[in-house]
Amino acid sequence: MSNEKLPSRSENFSEWYNQVVQRAELADYAPVRGCMVVRPYGWSIWENIQQALDKRFKATGHVNAAFPLFIPMSFLEKEKEHVEGFSPELAVVTVGGGEKLEEPLVVRPTSETIIGYMYSKWIKSYRDLPVLINQWANVVRWEMRTRLFLRTLEFYWQEGHTAHATAEEAEEETMRMLNVYTDFAENEAAVPVVPGVKSESEKFAGAVRSYTIEAMMGDRRALQSGTSHFLGQNFAKAFDIQFLDWNNELQYAWTTSWGLSTRFVGAIIMTHGDDQGLILPPRLAPIQVVIVPIYKNDDEKARVMETVNRVQSELSAFRVHVDSRTELTPGFKFNDWELRGVPLRIEIGPKDVEKGSVAFARRDIPGREGKSFVSQDGLADSVQKMLDEIQKSLFQRALAFREANTYRPDAYDELKEAVQKGWALAWWCEDADCEAKVKEDTRATTRCIPLEQEGGQGTCVVCGRPAARKVYFARAY
Amino acid sequence: MSNEKLPSRSENFSEWYNQVVQRAELADYAPVRGCMVVRPYGWSIWENIQQALDKRFKATGHVNAAFPLFIPMSFLEKEKEHVEGFSPELAVVTVGGGEKLEEPLVVRPTSETIIGYMYSKWIKSYRDLPVLINQWANVVRWEMRTRLFLRTLEFYWQEGHTAHATAEEAEEETMRMLNVYTDFAENEAAVPVVPGVKSESEKFAGAVRSYTIEAMMGDRRALQSGTSHFLGQNFAKAFDIQFLDWNNELQYAWTTSWGLSTRFVGAIIMTHGDDQGLILPPRLAPIQVVIVPIYKNDDEKARVMETVNRVQSELSAFRVHVDSRTELTPGFKFNDWELRGVPLRIEIGPKDVEKGSVAFARRDIPGREGKSFVSQDGLADSVQKMLDEIQKSLFQRALAFREANTYRPDAYDELKEAVQKGWALAWWCEDADCEAKVKEDTRATTRCIPLEQEGGQGTCVVCGRPAARKVYFARAY
Repeated sequence: MSNEKLPSRSENFSEWYNQVVQRAELADYAPVRGCMVVRPYGWSIWENIQQALDKRFKATGHVNAAFPLFIPMSFLEKEKEHVEGFSPELAVVTVGGGEKLEEPLVVRPTSETIIGYMYSKWIKSYRDLPVLINQWANVVRWEMRTRLFLRTLEFYWQEGHTAHATAEEAEEETMRMLNVYTDFAENEAAVPVVPGVKSESEKFAGAVRSYTIEAMMGDRRALQSGTSHFLGQNFAKAFDIQFLDWNNELQYAWTTSWGLSTRFVGAIIMTHGDDQGLILPPRLAPIQVVIVPIYKNDDEKARVMETVNRVQSELSAFRVHVDSRTELTPGFKFNDWELRGVPLRIEIGPKDVEKGSVAFARRDIPGREGKSFVSQDGLADSVQKMLDEIQKSLFQRALAFREANTYRPDAYDELKEAVQKGWALAWWCEDADCEAKVKEDTRATTRCIPLEQEGGQGTCVVCGRPAARKVYFARAY
Repeated sequence: MSNEKLPSRSENFSEWYNQVVQRAELADYAPVRGCMVVRPYGWSIWENIQQALDKRFKATGHVNAAFPLFIPMSFLEKEKEHVEGFSPELAVVTVGGGEKLEEPLVVRPTSETIIGYMYSKWIKSYRDLPVLINQWANVVRWEMRTRLFLRTLEFYWQEGHTAHATAEEAEEETMRMLNVYTDFAENEAAVPVVPGVKSESEKFAGAVRSYTIEAMMGDRRALQSGTSHFLGQNFAKAFDIQFLDWNNELQYAWTTSWGLSTRFVGAIIMTHGDDQGLILPPRLAPIQVVIVPIYKNDDEKARVMETVNRVQSELSAFRVHVDSRTELTPGFKFNDWELRGVPLRIEIGPKDVEKGSVAFARRDIPGREGKSFVSQDGLADSVQKMLDEIQKSLFQRALAFREANTYRPDAYDELKEAVQKGWALAWWCEDADCEAKVKEDTRATTRCIPLEQEGGQGTCVVCGRPAARKVYFARAY
């Protein structure tokens, strides 16, 4: 807890991020390099994300299960692209119960292989399909450069793994879950995203096609915020997931996988905050409303607290916190809750008690402009309206920011300039060489070929050859 | 899915257990020795357990967080008893990102050490206390003899870790959480438990005192079903968790830890089932009511399904499943849902449609006796009453079973006989030698000294010396 000023978000975004995460008590560094502790306030955001997603998963027919943390090293080797993609990042258990293991065990970096193995045991006939399973789990990838929430050795996520009788059904599933992520990101987190398909070089190791939702952070870099993969029959063949079809013939299943992680907490922080700290979208905020009582003496305190307690119980449908700490001034508390990004602050003082009103202070509009006085009558309705308004305004603001920082370069020089300032949406011939050249020259990568194309045809911004689709180039986390 | 007969529960309890777990699709063996896959039906029981506990944790002021999976080996060595207790069971990561690690990392067997380290960073003053944190996590203990749910290399649990300014507060917390477990076990899972304190030799490695809830399984063995530990200042001293007290003097904090795991799913299976399979307590059952439509032809089917659909929507407050599989007979379905332990089956046939009734079949009372015909009017109320009745009756039956199988031996020969048949509640001098002798002679261990004592004083059933309290001796899982 501290009232010291944060670094400026516009001037030193990276340091602003680090300090906000730690000072708002979202997460802390663990004693093991690259690992994090997610503190209660941060974990509570993740719990709200989990609820919002889990509801959507169940509504689309999925069930949860739990697969083991440890995977035999040999499993990863069964899918060639997969092992190439993941082997540099593995944590390996070589000793168990005091003895050296015959076969080393990998701490799961993702679970396609072990789940594929189990599916091959469980799936025998078309009647067993589709299998629609999700798990909430921790996974480990041995990253060298780490950052709280964005890139840590261990992180938390959900990974959906489904198996289907036909390619069409598996492709439908892949798109369904991409839509679930888009809906979640935009309507719960107020984070506008571009859904699209990854290039060949950016796709998941072992997938036929990877889809992604990409979001623009406050420093104009892109963050891959959720992915959905059509795996074709790659893993079904590697793990022998076969079923008897309607004609009693053996077929390989078609599988998908899709995931969204605690990285998304980073997306929320980097999309919304300001120089005062976090701004949390009301739907996911652990505390939606903080009530700060204001008084000078015991007499005032008694009157104010009576109203505060009544208001608190009237607002029981919301996640409300009353800051009744006596050793701190109201001004200190205002700063403290602003740092923590609580969307709405309600101040109640002796004058409010007299007038039957309260003061609202919107977190998304600092200072006088965000203040209003509201009657205590019908307060639950007023709070709901204000939270809806804040939710909407955060989304609109982030969308406007993304649009203002998205360029449409026609020439290579323009592209190079654009990716220093924001995102570039440009024609691309879909050749990996052009993509590699951009990366080398600018460090920007292709983020996705958006599903929604603006139409027409053009020429590749790199090589000038004909191009059927536009792609986003951007520097990314 | 199979309708084959299970082994008899009374004749071969162990094999009955193994088959029920696998055929009811609760869990399966993973390809790594001793690891399990918790399948959707089993995980759904765990999710219901999580909800019931998490609600209670939050109501008692706790918040959730997430601490890392990996713990530096040196941390475990800081608390002498702790490292001795856990070192034979560790899984150790020695390679990360392709390189040998300087310090091996232990996959957490429990998190007192790493959480102690973090608490020492966070706690500075009495104002920071108490810290009341829980985490839902996977942990790993390298067990040699494993069994699905009861003992697996990796298992799932919650572990609460709290820090307090005084010993009294920490002891209160320890008891509060033991009470939460007791309340949960008895009122949600219908599993009667004995809350009590562990003997010195059975306590948690590093604790001052360990409390437990012990439950009697269907084979009369005991299962430790949840534990709550008063850790004194042991971990605070090992990890330097110090705070400035009201007099501005440095003090070590007092800590507790408490946990309940997926083992409890095993407790539910072994407390309630019968020769037909599982019997799940209504409050935790993934499916509380299964509706089986009965018809002979398309005309009947149309009429029956109309009623089935209406009934289903009227029962939307319950977890209802309609078994509309067309390739299976009603008899097959009855067996299938009995195996899976669904507490209440509702059968609807053409006659029921005519009469405006449905047939109830209680899972806890097989055959005709458990059947009744109930009006479709006010069905939701009738279902609620029946589920409450089943919940209560499961608890009463298990309690009666435990009482019928609990003996009160006065002599050592009686004790030796008693622990072959059930539990023995007997006077004990609390000397470890007597406890060790019983274990050697009978394989029975002390389960707990129950908090509720029957009063009086006696002489130790082993050595004849004076004894102030009775203890439960039993063979245990």
